[in-house]
Amino acid sequence: MLIQERIRTPSPQCFVDVTHYIAAAVKQSGIKNAHILVSVPHTTAALTVNENADPDVVTDLLRRLESIAPSRDSLDRHSEGNSHAHLKSSLLGSCHPFIVNEGELVLGTWQGIYLCEFDGPRTRSLIISMLKSD
Amino acid sequence: MLIQERIRTPSPQCFVDVTHYIAAAVKQSGIKNAHILVSVPHTTAALTVNENADPDVVTDLLRRLESIAPSRDSLDRHSEGNSHAHLKSSLLGSCHPFIVNEGELVLGTWQGIYLCEFDGPRTRSLIISMLKSD
Amino acid sequence: MLIQERIRTPSPQCFVDVTHYIAAAVKQSGIKNAHILVSVPHTTAALTVNENADPDVVTDLLRRLESIAPSRDSLDRHSEGNSHAHLKSSLLGSCHPFIVNEGELVLGTWQGIYLCEFDGPRTRSLIISMLKSD
Repeated sequence: MLIQERIRTPSPQCFVDVTHYIAAAVKQSGIKNAHILVSVPHTTAALTVNENADPDVVTDLLRRLESIAPSRDSLDRHSEGNSHAHLKSSLLGSCHPFIVNEGELVLGTWQGIYLCEFDGPRTRSLIISMLKSD
Repeated sequence: MLIQERIRTPSPQCFVDVTHYIAAAVKQSGIKNAHILVSVPHTTAALTVNENADPDVVTDLLRRLESIAPSRDSLDRHSEGNSHAHLKSSLLGSCHPFIVNEGELVLGTWQGIYLCEFDGPRTRSLIISMLKSD
Repeated sequence: MLIQERIRTPSPQCFVDVTHYIAAAVKQSGIKNAHILVSVPHTTAALTVNENADPDVVTDLLRRLESIAPSRDSLDRHSEGNSHAHLKSSLLGSCHPFIVNEGELVLGTWQGIYLCEFDGPRTRSLIISMLKSD
């Protein structure tokens, strides 16, 4: 089963919490035990799982990712000037697996799922595929 | 099928080889061909696959990760002081897929599976979910 | 179903586009809806999904990865001198999941799948495992 959402990202670099989309898709499917794949089919965005309690965690993650992969780098050859976003996408990954057990998305207490925008604002796709267990 | 282990990590930042837990779970399940998901449902720990022959590889990985994401950073806003651990968790990922073929976990000769602790010592959960092929 | 390919990498550090191998394996299998896992069972290589239109993107990714994880680092203890390659492997990941829908590998317009060599030239294995949906 394939579900597709469109997510509007509000700024050049930001994390958008998409946990509720994925949890809702699991609920609506009625699936009990499954592996699901969530994909953002883009090369300057990504997904990550991290804390969704204190928003300062995301602030720190964005700043620290920028120090690892600075937006401006005079050695970049790609003419669009977004090589940093391509690197951030590869470092975090654009397709992530999740476990569904007894009808519930298996996440830790502090874990949320983020769509990570690195070259926005844009409208991004979020694809959810579920493979059920016997 | 869902299997849960509790893993005690011995120090603030360390890699604990968990390959044998996962290989044993595969054996005990009697499963032949499958995809499995292994998750650490935490935001300051991760999983990674890397060499488990020479322990110096892990020493170098930990030191190099620390240079990418230093424990101390005066610009961090998250008050718990563990933003470096959140970043390391996102860089390595907390839920990884593996192939099971003919009853065996498919890994290369030098590949082991590590639980990566970045904010320990703690007791961490390791969740293994198996989805069998027809 | 398990498919194995051997890929010759041409230089010490390079990205080899392997999208066509994976798309061809999907086509030949006749599978309709599935999750597939692609693995490079090595600890100094990886897989990543990124742009395969402008080759400058890969040039920038390789240079930027080298600045994050330099080949030469006098503090490394692992005697083979390839700790940088082990780190790059862990940062990008060596086993990635993909969605197959209606017989097609689900990728975005600009997404290609790369085998990332960090300690070549070598012959690397590429393993593809498919798990079909009902």
